[in-house]
Amino acid sequence: MATNGSQKKVGLAPDRLASFYGRDIVSVMQFSRDDLTYIFGVADEMRSLVKRVGATDLLKGYVLGNLFYEPSTRTSSSFIAAMERLGGSVIPIHGVQYSSVSKGESLPDTIRTLQCYADVIVLRHPEIGASAVAARYATKPVISAGDGTGEHPTQGLLDIYTIYSELGAVDGLHVAMVGDLRNGRTVHSLARLLRLYDTKMTFVAPDILQLPADLKAELEDSGRVVRETGRLQDVIADADVIYVTRVQKERFDDLRLYEAVKDYYEITPELMEQAKPRMALMHPLPRVGEIHYDVDDDPRAAYFRQMENGMYVRMALLAAVLGKV
Amino acid sequence: MATNGSQKKVGLAPDRLASFYGRDIVSVMQFSRDDLTYIFGVADEMRSLVKRVGATDLLKGYVLGNLFYEPSTRTSSSFIAAMERLGGSVIPIHGVQYSSVSKGESLPDTIRTLQCYADVIVLRHPEIGASAVAARYATKPVISAGDGTGEHPTQGLLDIYTIYSELGAVDGLHVAMVGDLRNGRTVHSLARLLRLYDTKMTFVAPDILQLPADLKAELEDSGRVVRETGRLQDVIADADVIYVTRVQKERFDDLRLYEAVKDYYEITPELMEQAKPRMALMHPLPRVGEIHYDVDDDPRAAYFRQMENGMYVRMALLAAVLGKV
Amino acid sequence: MATNGSQKKVGLAPDRLASFYGRDIVSVMQFSRDDLTYIFGVADEMRSLVKRVGATDLLKGYVLGNLFYEPSTRTSSSFIAAMERLGGSVIPIHGVQYSSVSKGESLPDTIRTLQCYADVIVLRHPEIGASAVAARYATKPVISAGDGTGEHPTQGLLDIYTIYSELGAVDGLHVAMVGDLRNGRTVHSLARLLRLYDTKMTFVAPDILQLPADLKAELEDSGRVVRETGRLQDVIADADVIYVTRVQKERFDDLRLYEAVKDYYEITPELMEQAKPRMALMHPLPRVGEIHYDVDDDPRAAYFRQMENGMYVRMALLAAVLGKV
Repeated sequence: MATNGSQKKVGLAPDRLASFYGRDIVSVMQFSRDDLTYIFGVADEMRSLVKRVGATDLLKGYVLGNLFYEPSTRTSSSFIAAMERLGGSVIPIHGVQYSSVSKGESLPDTIRTLQCYADVIVLRHPEIGASAVAARYATKPVISAGDGTGEHPTQGLLDIYTIYSELGAVDGLHVAMVGDLRNGRTVHSLARLLRLYDTKMTFVAPDILQLPADLKAELEDSGRVVRETGRLQDVIADADVIYVTRVQKERFDDLRLYEAVKDYYEITPELMEQAKPRMALMHPLPRVGEIHYDVDDDPRAAYFRQMENGMYVRMALLAAVLGKV
Repeated sequence: MATNGSQKKVGLAPDRLASFYGRDIVSVMQFSRDDLTYIFGVADEMRSLVKRVGATDLLKGYVLGNLFYEPSTRTSSSFIAAMERLGGSVIPIHGVQYSSVSKGESLPDTIRTLQCYADVIVLRHPEIGASAVAARYATKPVISAGDGTGEHPTQGLLDIYTIYSELGAVDGLHVAMVGDLRNGRTVHSLARLLRLYDTKMTFVAPDILQLPADLKAELEDSGRVVRETGRLQDVIADADVIYVTRVQKERFDDLRLYEAVKDYYEITPELMEQAKPRMALMHPLPRVGEIHYDVDDDPRAAYFRQMENGMYVRMALLAAVLGKV
Repeated sequence: MATNGSQKKVGLAPDRLASFYGRDIVSVMQFSRDDLTYIFGVADEMRSLVKRVGATDLLKGYVLGNLFYEPSTRTSSSFIAAMERLGGSVIPIHGVQYSSVSKGESLPDTIRTLQCYADVIVLRHPEIGASAVAARYATKPVISAGDGTGEHPTQGLLDIYTIYSELGAVDGLHVAMVGDLRNGRTVHSLARLLRLYDTKMTFVAPDILQLPADLKAELEDSGRVVRETGRLQDVIADADVIYVTRVQKERFDDLRLYEAVKDYYEITPELMEQAKPRMALMHPLPRVGEIHYDVDDDPRAAYFRQMENGMYVRMALLAAVLGKV
């Protein structure tokens, strides 16, 4: 968010508890631990509110512009539900490829038009950095819902919030991330947020899908213990969190390579027998075979609670950037 | 609706007045006459309410997940309007072919994700049985909005409700169904519900589009009078209800066959002169020539009132499954 | 809006202040100056309300059917936001090419179905005259959101409202319209409304994109001063309003012709130095190069305020046709 045409007004504030009012949410790098503690506290309140009475009138009269340049049913549904349960309204703009963008309009113009109608904008865009561009031109708060293979900050927040909800704390945990770690933006956002806590991270992937070297260096520079392995067996008994991601077919030029790795790390009930009795099995969903359906009834399977947490965290963010908490 | 991963909790209850609270609506076979009487009474109240004041706050704070895997403007609009007039909110998920489903996600996972955000789910799906699958995995109520050539239970309910509204009763009537009776799921749902009443049914279609043999047997087993004919002339003077359906081009492999039958049964003002002075001409719409536009002003032309009744019946169902009536 | 099947009940009332209650909005030709004065007064109130408190409950319980047969993000978003800020709800029907229309349903049937669910209908349609057809069959008010290369009446209203807001009056002004004047429906609607005021109009375009001869004659018959030129230089120093439009690629059969004219009239900061210190630079957006981004910070650049005005005018129209102002 910035005044029209001027430089970005509110930037990344990793080291202090900034007020969220009027702030853009475009990168996990902008958050301090205090920021997370604050948002998680509000998210706890939102969960309690939804469980008790379903909804509130906190954002009555406010309008969310939900601008999705690429489809994402779960993320867009989560934001819509979050706004509606806060009493606000939504302008749903999906399938936008068919609209003024195809007439050649620039993203800044689209954003500056949409903010004539909406009080807050959620943006999903296929290009890295699109959210930061949108935030620079908007005078209303912009919340990124993911851009390309870049950031997906609200996913990162809900993932940490889920660890905190499931296990009571984040410090001291061993978090294993599994699957396509090279391309998975959820893993990247999660790992960057985990730097803020005293955690041990293990990255489990075949070599060609391991974490990008620069991100690995970034994590090591932060002083965290970072390990890589190709074997799930190396972490299954010790991890407090196993975060599984999908190997995305659309990322592969060579489909034979995809076929070779896609079933590499399937979580089965048998495997879960080796895991700690108190741990959290997470997945950003959708899954396509990475976690066997028979695992769903395991109390450690946290992925549907993780989905639900997404709504509470987004309720907290919407209320916070609109200055209502 | 079922507890997660367990067996279906509430099943088909044709013989008793079940409470609707928490119940799934997936098949017309689940309803007893008392169920219908109850829902129609609530629908009457909803109509009265809409006519007087337009809307209510009965479902304020509740969220409907409106999940349409295939387009159906009228059914989705009807559910959206129903929820909104009850004071609730909607997550509209249309054109879902472009979203996580295309990434290979299973229907159960999509449903279990959506119910993290919504209090009730309406599902339209191209495959027979999809609604029952969804209901088995959902812990929130699922209402079918039609699956493939299978069931379309809310259409069946609104059709019976329309007969009841137009003619004051259903028992004792002669109901003629016309058109593509082989593939038309609305006719199948309607005929199955008519079994619950003391009615005579005549099925008017060319041989190749007549009722499936198993459905015909099912109706006869229920003790109802069932007749088939190829001639509209055989029923026009005697029928209390003429229910016309569209011959769907997309069901024909041989387009010459389609051309041969499509104009077979056109309802014209001249034909209506032979019909009873008090009867109901119905059509689930859209129509493509089956009923001449000049019939629209005939007071017996009930098809637009039928549309409107769809909203009242859906308001009744939404309120009932959420336990608010 | 008409009673079902009867003749159109409320027609064009250019010469008197008609009550807006129940009226259709399908053509700028239906408005008198008094009509505009009335709507602009209501729009002023809507703006004040939004600036102060964001929203109202004026249309609580009312439902808008937002029926878009072709994509138009900005217009549909504007209507959705307008309805939501008035406390009403929306049935969003976009991408309707995939729905019952593709099954061959007629527009009148679609409209008569939608009005079973909605209290007011907004229609965007690719064919000229579609809104008038819809209005004839509807018993609920229909507001055109543009039909083909025909009318776009709410755009015309918001354009005049913007001139009035920016410059305090419309009488006595010199309005220059620039770009594709042959095909641009926004220019046609604007010019027709300007007839109601004591204005001078200059049309700036290459010969092949000049105003249609019949529209030019229509304007001259109204007694207004009408000039044509190919040079922006002829009007830049004298115009009180410069209204720039996009040259739409999709209107050209010969793409070489498009390339030749598309950059013909670019508004740059240098050009704006020659313009009056108090004037309004307008554009219906989206723009694709017609106005340089460096002009955006110029206080005379009114196009984003113009967007915002669209919401206030549409709020005024929705409230007026539903009889709530």
